[in-house]
Amino acid sequence: MPRFALRIEYDGGPFSGWQRQSHAPSVQGAVEAAIARLEVAPVTIAAAGRTDAGVHATGQIAHADLAKDWDPFRLMGALNHHLKPHPVAVTACAEVSEEWHARFSATERRYLFRMLNRRAPAALEAGKVWLVPQPMDVDAMQDGARHLLGRHDFTTFRASECQADSPVRTLDELRIERAGSGEAPEIHFHVRARSFLHSQVRSFVGTLERVGAGAWPPGRVGEVLAARDRARCGPVCPPHGLYLAGVSYPEDPFG
Amino acid sequence: MPRFALRIEYDGGPFSGWQRQSHAPSVQGAVEAAIARLEVAPVTIAAAGRTDAGVHATGQIAHADLAKDWDPFRLMGALNHHLKPHPVAVTACAEVSEEWHARFSATERRYLFRMLNRRAPAALEAGKVWLVPQPMDVDAMQDGARHLLGRHDFTTFRASECQADSPVRTLDELRIERAGSGEAPEIHFHVRARSFLHSQVRSFVGTLERVGAGAWPPGRVGEVLAARDRARCGPVCPPHGLYLAGVSYPEDPFG
Repeated sequence: MPRFALRIEYDGGPFSGWQRQSHAPSVQGAVEAAIARLEVAPVTIAAAGRTDAGVHATGQIAHADLAKDWDPFRLMGALNHHLKPHPVAVTACAEVSEEWHARFSATERRYLFRMLNRRAPAALEAGKVWLVPQPMDVDAMQDGARHLLGRHDFTTFRASECQADSPVRTLDELRIERAGSGEAPEIHFHVRARSFLHSQVRSFVGTLERVGAGAWPPGRVGEVLAARDRARCGPVCPPHGLYLAGVSYPEDPFG
Repeated sequence: MPRFALRIEYDGGPFSGWQRQSHAPSVQGAVEAAIARLEVAPVTIAAAGRTDAGVHATGQIAHADLAKDWDPFRLMGALNHHLKPHPVAVTACAEVSEEWHARFSATERRYLFRMLNRRAPAALEAGKVWLVPQPMDVDAMQDGARHLLGRHDFTTFRASECQADSPVRTLDELRIERAGSGEAPEIHFHVRARSFLHSQVRSFVGTLERVGAGAWPPGRVGEVLAARDRARCGPVCPPHGLYLAGVSYPEDPFG
């Protein structure tokens, strides 16, 4: 059975998350239902990142083993046809070897978090950004973020329900920049690591917001990291500003 | 009665356009209903651009004469409170003189048109971009656009229902650039003039798409302009990629 890699974009708003559930709509369920229109036997897909409810993706990666030797370009078109009207689209498709695995072959995940930093609510980007009305000190946030870079025990920054065996991860990048326009000033958090713990990015952003607001000195981020105590984390921010932006592999399957 | 200038952002999707109508939801109607929660007497507002159904705005400008001498910051908050759950937000508010008029004082309007140039449908940006699957030649489109710059009779590029007295306008900018990301490659059209005719920007973009696709040579844009014949225009593109991005005045009312 040929294996296909899929790059998937979705609006996480209407879904209970990536992972299939019996009584709630999921992105995995939507993609598997589209595949079921093309294949006789049921197909289960695996993804690089199991995003939470409300989290979006511009570059989620999954793989599927199909019975038919599809032309990848036609497979992409057929899946997008059957995905309608869900806000899910396959933006790239390639055949890969049977050893290639969307989750286990991945060497890096990249997330983007979008904060809308103004008083007025989001009209055009409702559900796509986290609205933070108070002015943010980006330099202070970046100072705080420096404590998180590198290899650490991230117990403070993972959800209590996190199922990872180890709380140790290596954070390769947490870059904060102003973005957007004069009417819609945004602050973007670019976060990069081989793998992440459950709610790790939202725990980072929620904590750094406290620094940006001036409620926490930047050094407190290092203190709560060292404490390895979930109770010391800042408030976890909402999911709807978070995007799984990309996944890297030893070789780009779509290159 | 003090006069207030409002900068307004909206998702045009759920509306029949800016202009109030008796039996269809409009942006003007939504804003006037929010004002009605604050004022005893009915208030009518005037806007710089009367956008069509499905057209968005990041920088629409309107004005309203209110009975109460509001603090502009508090007025903005109160309006945003009462605008919920409509996808409409007041992003700036300032008191202006009674001679100042959102429409008649305006010296320039700026529009952005977003084309999503890929095979896969828009998932995250559904309703916010025009999907064009075939590859686009941006240089050819820019060559075609050059014929439109300056002062011309734009009869070819205005809707038959256009109510302007004259079809003569001066186009100050029509700049086309690649934007977006590798997963979501976009082409942006930046268009700038003192004022526009009905459907003028959508007539430009739909015509230039034909050039980008290679169906029209760039010089044909100049020929159909010179013909002053609506029937010679390319197909008018859909409204949902169009944004009223900003309006200029002799002095920035929010500066």
